[in-house]
Amino acid sequence: MATTNLLTPPHLHHPSPAARLRVSASLAHPLLVSRLRLATASRSRPSPRRRAMSATVRSSLIDPDGGALVDLVAPPDRRAALRAEAEALPRVRLSPIDLQWAHVLAEGWASPLRGFMREAEYLQSLHFNCIRLPDGGLVNMSLPIVLAIGDAEKEQIGDGPDVALEGPDGDVIAVLRRVEIYPHNKEERIARTWGTTAPGLPYVDEAIASAGNWLIGGDLEVLEPIKYNDGLDRYRLSPRQLRNEFDKRGADAVFAFQLRNPVHNGHALLMNDTRRRLLEMGYKNPILLLHPLGGFTKADDVPLPVRMEQHSKVLEDGVLDPETTIVSIFPSPMHYAGPTEVQWHAKARINAGANFYIVGRDPAGMGHPTEKRDLYNPDHGKKVLSMAPGLEKLNILPFKVAAYDTVAKKMAFFDPSRSQDFLFISGTKMRTFAKNGENPPDGFMCPGGWKVLVDYYNSLQAEEATLAPV
Amino acid sequence: MATTNLLTPPHLHHPSPAARLRVSASLAHPLLVSRLRLATASRSRPSPRRRAMSATVRSSLIDPDGGALVDLVAPPDRRAALRAEAEALPRVRLSPIDLQWAHVLAEGWASPLRGFMREAEYLQSLHFNCIRLPDGGLVNMSLPIVLAIGDAEKEQIGDGPDVALEGPDGDVIAVLRRVEIYPHNKEERIARTWGTTAPGLPYVDEAIASAGNWLIGGDLEVLEPIKYNDGLDRYRLSPRQLRNEFDKRGADAVFAFQLRNPVHNGHALLMNDTRRRLLEMGYKNPILLLHPLGGFTKADDVPLPVRMEQHSKVLEDGVLDPETTIVSIFPSPMHYAGPTEVQWHAKARINAGANFYIVGRDPAGMGHPTEKRDLYNPDHGKKVLSMAPGLEKLNILPFKVAAYDTVAKKMAFFDPSRSQDFLFISGTKMRTFAKNGENPPDGFMCPGGWKVLVDYYNSLQAEEATLAPV
Repeated sequence: MATTNLLTPPHLHHPSPAARLRVSASLAHPLLVSRLRLATASRSRPSPRRRAMSATVRSSLIDPDGGALVDLVAPPDRRAALRAEAEALPRVRLSPIDLQWAHVLAEGWASPLRGFMREAEYLQSLHFNCIRLPDGGLVNMSLPIVLAIGDAEKEQIGDGPDVALEGPDGDVIAVLRRVEIYPHNKEERIARTWGTTAPGLPYVDEAIASAGNWLIGGDLEVLEPIKYNDGLDRYRLSPRQLRNEFDKRGADAVFAFQLRNPVHNGHALLMNDTRRRLLEMGYKNPILLLHPLGGFTKADDVPLPVRMEQHSKVLEDGVLDPETTIVSIFPSPMHYAGPTEVQWHAKARINAGANFYIVGRDPAGMGHPTEKRDLYNPDHGKKVLSMAPGLEKLNILPFKVAAYDTVAKKMAFFDPSRSQDFLFISGTKMRTFAKNGENPPDGFMCPGGWKVLVDYYNSLQAEEATLAPV
Repeated sequence: MATTNLLTPPHLHHPSPAARLRVSASLAHPLLVSRLRLATASRSRPSPRRRAMSATVRSSLIDPDGGALVDLVAPPDRRAALRAEAEALPRVRLSPIDLQWAHVLAEGWASPLRGFMREAEYLQSLHFNCIRLPDGGLVNMSLPIVLAIGDAEKEQIGDGPDVALEGPDGDVIAVLRRVEIYPHNKEERIARTWGTTAPGLPYVDEAIASAGNWLIGGDLEVLEPIKYNDGLDRYRLSPRQLRNEFDKRGADAVFAFQLRNPVHNGHALLMNDTRRRLLEMGYKNPILLLHPLGGFTKADDVPLPVRMEQHSKVLEDGVLDPETTIVSIFPSPMHYAGPTEVQWHAKARINAGANFYIVGRDPAGMGHPTEKRDLYNPDHGKKVLSMAPGLEKLNILPFKVAAYDTVAKKMAFFDPSRSQDFLFISGTKMRTFAKNGENPPDGFMCPGGWKVLVDYYNSLQAEEATLAPV
């Protein structure tokens, strides 16, 4: 796997004032659709609060939302006392998805959130996709990060201020303090988050439909770092670890690429082209954060371990440069909520230290669950992202469309003047090739990466054959 | 009718610095839940743009959104040329509700909007309930103000930059310039605006379900002030006229009360109590803007002419003081979209010069169309309003609950320590009394106002009897 990407020797480097000037000049660059002025203003005047944090969270490229990275994991010397305290508290059992959210919160991906949302945060998220800071500023927060409980749990908790949270296996993992319990209006939550209430939304079916009719918010204190023991924990770098890694590498720009699919050569072309453009803008050492989503995904997506193996092959085969790429797992579950969710994907990467974010066609989109059309207008994701309150400091890089060029026999940026030469290979088509043991056109994906997919679908078919009635 | 309210002699008066200080001190007052600090900062530093407008739009209590009040009515000397130009353009026919929105836009209630929304404004409204200004600031804009067209109209318009808008009777009323046509995803619009897609939402049934599948945005230029010729036009004061009126009266605070129901003595108690509290805070001349909604309402609401007559009796009977009350009609149609819509109701009153807004239980709410419950949590309206981006400069006054005190035999603020003494009389119950010719308890509403309602329901029943088959 891609361990080499984390082992490059550190060579600290800070951008010179001249480099900053070149960044400002890049406003005119067609690749950029953001308010870079605000970003540079924010960089040149670090807040006192951020300076105070700099001993532990060093990446100076972009401030975490709220000014300081939230860390809700109890220090080792507090854990025994916390565990003893938790034993005496009412218990709430977390689902696997709840645990993923606890992980997200604990490591500060959702900074400045300090726990599952209370009602004031929930309402702001639902209505405005952003939350007001004590100083009057806004941070983006487009998905409600909430914990549902049922009537029995609500009754058991009563008026008590604190509850213990146990993981899916029953072990206590955290304490939730000064809790607030408020109604879980599922219909309204779904309508405002997805823009539809049609049956068949994967996250709704998995995590909302059968959840309790109450939400419980409060301040989270996690006993110890959350691990999954699936062999991939070492790729789950926290925002703090990522920021340290960017500093070690001497990054003067970090561009994040969110994905939940195998990397084909079109993606690689885009990422390499982005790096080339950043170099042209005057950056000396742009680092790519290749950041596959690691939480809940729908049943027909390629599972995380397979994707991680595929990504590793892409680096081994030299399609992406290990020296300037960090592969790490983003622990969030997937909502498939299009323009609403893409804001969360971008916001979390601010907290991880990325100051550039690549956005594609129809990010976090899917087919409408009951109608024959895309659930979202494929252009809305990047439009909404570029307008979202609280994301002003992030530079949004819109995705150029890559397709298979049948003349050049490789993935290339789509050229509308000879559109007949291009072949669009969707995720569904790619999976169909792999399932049927067919090869995609030469140059679509590196052979090592493709083999990972073929092996995965072969193993699925073998499993299905075993399970089929004789 | 309440003409006297517009005929009080002007006595201009501007708040002294000392009065401003007393306003700041009122932050601690339990009646206030707003960020008054921002409001006073904004008042003490009028922008150059606002100063430039002050010759025509004088009320100095609160700036219009965007700094200047939008006025889209062509000056008289331009109208002939504009009409000639419009004759040659492709036509779009407005529905009665579309015309109400054109009216709203033309007079600047939606400042800084200058016409029906283009897609960038529509997306911001739908996702963030606010719109970004060129200077990076945000103004609130929670309802999409959009114009739907069908395939045939879209084809007829083609690539032309401008279209003529004709009223429901076929007369050209406006030109829409530099138009942009984009898809009307009704499901998403409804889900994100109402938080439900259940059938039976009045505005959806009336204005969206059968509307076209495209939206057309652009800059609006209206030929002349929009009139309805229903005998009530003189009560339809524009934001500019209202601001002038507040100045004439020498208002040093304006508190707006949005309503779509008859005024009972509980409302009056609340409005009079608000005035008393504002005087206690140090204001010398608080003016009440009693501001019934005049656009589309659902079939079982009391019609506007009847409500206006009822409001007039309330002033004649001395329940509200004509000297310190202005009754005017707010031309917007009603969405019944609860927490989303109440932001629009408040924002429009900023543009009309009100710096205090009274918000009640379940504002713009109604029963769920298919379930036996309120569509919205009755507390969410005031919570969302107090948190909404772009409304920071408005002081939100939460409604205290009034009910009929059976001991004192009058409407009084509810006292939970003797809850058994109080009778809650809902709008539905009030209508049932009036329909059945029963009297509500003494002191519920002034007799003159009550008689207006009884006469209205009698006339309805007479009409029904006439229409019934023999």
